[in-house]
Amino acid sequence: MTNDFSPAMMTDMYEYTMLDAAMQDGTADRRCVFEVFTRHLPAGRRYGIAAGLGRILEMLKDFRPSESDLKFLRDRHVVSERTAKWLENFRFTGTIRAYREGEAFFANSPILQVEGTFGECTLLETLILSVLNYDSAIASAASRMTSAAGDRPCMDMGGRRTNESAAVAAARAAIVGGFAGTANLAAAKKYDLVCIGTAAHAFTLLHDNERDAFVSQINALGPGTTLLTDTYNIEQAITTAVEVAGPELGGIRIDSGDLASLAQKARKQLDSLGATNTKITVTNDLDEYALAALATAPVDSYGVGTMLVTGSGHPTCAMVYKLTEREGADGQMHGVAKKSFGKSTDGWRKRALRCYQYGLAQGELVVCGPAEKLASFEPDKAEYGDTKDLLITAVDHGDIDDSLTGHDALLAARDHHREALDELPVTALSLSQGEQAIPTEVITIA
Amino acid sequence: MTNDFSPAMMTDMYEYTMLDAAMQDGTADRRCVFEVFTRHLPAGRRYGIAAGLGRILEMLKDFRPSESDLKFLRDRHVVSERTAKWLENFRFTGTIRAYREGEAFFANSPILQVEGTFGECTLLETLILSVLNYDSAIASAASRMTSAAGDRPCMDMGGRRTNESAAVAAARAAIVGGFAGTANLAAAKKYDLVCIGTAAHAFTLLHDNERDAFVSQINALGPGTTLLTDTYNIEQAITTAVEVAGPELGGIRIDSGDLASLAQKARKQLDSLGATNTKITVTNDLDEYALAALATAPVDSYGVGTMLVTGSGHPTCAMVYKLTEREGADGQMHGVAKKSFGKSTDGWRKRALRCYQYGLAQGELVVCGPAEKLASFEPDKAEYGDTKDLLITAVDHGDIDDSLTGHDALLAARDHHREALDELPVTALSLSQGEQAIPTEVITIA
Repeated sequence: MTNDFSPAMMTDMYEYTMLDAAMQDGTADRRCVFEVFTRHLPAGRRYGIAAGLGRILEMLKDFRPSESDLKFLRDRHVVSERTAKWLENFRFTGTIRAYREGEAFFANSPILQVEGTFGECTLLETLILSVLNYDSAIASAASRMTSAAGDRPCMDMGGRRTNESAAVAAARAAIVGGFAGTANLAAAKKYDLVCIGTAAHAFTLLHDNERDAFVSQINALGPGTTLLTDTYNIEQAITTAVEVAGPELGGIRIDSGDLASLAQKARKQLDSLGATNTKITVTNDLDEYALAALATAPVDSYGVGTMLVTGSGHPTCAMVYKLTEREGADGQMHGVAKKSFGKSTDGWRKRALRCYQYGLAQGELVVCGPAEKLASFEPDKAEYGDTKDLLITAVDHGDIDDSLTGHDALLAARDHHREALDELPVTALSLSQGEQAIPTEVITIA
Repeated sequence: MTNDFSPAMMTDMYEYTMLDAAMQDGTADRRCVFEVFTRHLPAGRRYGIAAGLGRILEMLKDFRPSESDLKFLRDRHVVSERTAKWLENFRFTGTIRAYREGEAFFANSPILQVEGTFGECTLLETLILSVLNYDSAIASAASRMTSAAGDRPCMDMGGRRTNESAAVAAARAAIVGGFAGTANLAAAKKYDLVCIGTAAHAFTLLHDNERDAFVSQINALGPGTTLLTDTYNIEQAITTAVEVAGPELGGIRIDSGDLASLAQKARKQLDSLGATNTKITVTNDLDEYALAALATAPVDSYGVGTMLVTGSGHPTCAMVYKLTEREGADGQMHGVAKKSFGKSTDGWRKRALRCYQYGLAQGELVVCGPAEKLASFEPDKAEYGDTKDLLITAVDHGDIDDSLTGHDALLAARDHHREALDELPVTALSLSQGEQAIPTEVITIA
């Protein structure tokens, strides 16, 4: 297959040159903690939704350069012979803690934490960031869309507007953000998802007239199918559709024009023809604002494409992967931090707590410090209210928690997304630009 | 491997339900012409750059549902048994004509044309659009960046900010748009590209001090390596770097702060230390505007990340795949067109001509009509000047032109990109918002 890349190569070269230099100077075995976070949410966004952990875990199982990968790394002198040998048997033996998929995150949330040797942790950087940055961008957009859509199901139809493999990841991330299904077959097959879609304008144009096309589709898919009614004239198409399918026609789809007014007209016409249970689906460059504007239109479901798979204006999350703690020459762990202007980081590993009062989230507390101090840290209840730890263990000393991958984990993530949103202040769901829904406080107890 | 999806499944379900219905009513064998085009360039853009054809051709070879895919399609009742049988031996036997990779395109340019039976053409829709929409978005952004960078090489470092497989496609598309290399190992391996990258801030932080990190890197990679100098204090880092590597130090990289003024200072300092040949690379959320602003700064090369892989504000191209001509019940070919409000299309297949005067492109002429009329059409030289046909044959009755895939084709595309830009009026290279660089005229001779 063409996209058959080893996960270990979907990686920036410098991960391997750093590994190689560290192997030579003896620091590759130093214990390290790397953390993924974003310095800021996209401008005006109230929250982000974490997604991609399950995909990282799937790929982690195969994260080892193949023989031909190793040949390439040797031939290009990316790594020395000793490092190449070490890579032959590579297996990640560290620990990964992360925000659940579907969890809300904010600036400085430690979304994922990797603990292990420098060598094994540095190799994972690029892949982890690729997955979390893209999947979380899609889930974050999907979350705003499903909030705007209320009880009406949103379906992913965006595959054609993003890279063909990204499309599969986008379909999955959309589920995390509350979508009900996808048009993408690869995603539906891999994750056992609801798959939707019946016909394009080309199917109508293929036939000598619209009636022939509708008859053909109903013969193949039954009267419960959804007919596309805007190839020529919507009113005529609806008349033809109900004539051909009867009032048990499953649905019609409108893909152009002013969707709210067209849906109103279509609903009236369908009702007058007795097709009172026929559903109306609309699909045409929808985003969360368009969905909100359609709230009072008689629409039953939405197909969302371009704006979903491009993150509705924010196609990536600006997440970074930073070394925050490492073993020194003294054998002790030390908090470390970059001091670059405007891009400084907080040293030491993090513990992330969501703080509640009256059952609603009030803030996020990020505590930096040595492992032992973090473990025994007790937040002051008077100041922080009830608290909940946000990092769960996904990989324990190399042992991958398979319950976080696959179909069931994905539906659990969608449920968790709904619960996470329900806990946020109501302003979180405002589509207008604003501050993040709850403040983040970062404290250090080193 | 985790991304081991069959190209035939990286597809919207409705392609298969349309196929199935058309198989049942006998229209699946009707000869058809589908065309890819965009109704408009992204707002303010002067031109787009076509990319992705080589990847489509690679995947076309494997475009056949696997046994497990067919089981899924049967189990989900996406297709009937007869269609499933037909798919077992599927091979595209049609013809594909397309704009070369690296070619400039505009609104209504027929970037790719597929001719064959309805059945085989409809199945390709989603995959063709995914590839062209994403790859062309990246190549178009890359083109603006390399124009702004002038003679200084641009390197792709964006893999971590997009889906992990999209990253490989982005690295490739960046080459089409004039980039010199990539940090992405999978892309470098697959397409035999220049690969770059040495170390991240984590490598400095891993060590007990910056000097230890620099010594280690130079021991592993030699003094010709590029040292990252902005972990703590750039001036101190440069002093240390030259002390450790000597004046033959290959390069330094600055990844934060005001890059123009920092590069000025760094250049002076390096020169004063005798490191007059040491190169300066900058990398920090660069886009085409930042590159243009750095034109007079003493920078030798650029690393571009987020803004490259997200298309610099336009992560997709809005390309669509439309049926424009098909055989009717009478056995004759007919031009067909959708009449949806605002989304109408032009019937009949297209011939695309770039029109020149004094060696410069003056416009694009898109002629719609039956094949025979198009073939004999002679543009009026007084009106249109010299003309060049833009569609080349990539697949001839199922026979794939392999010279359009792989490393050599990619470098040829980059060369073609340069030639295509050189032919456009100079306003094409303006980064400011404006009209498309040359007008498109669509005429019908049916």
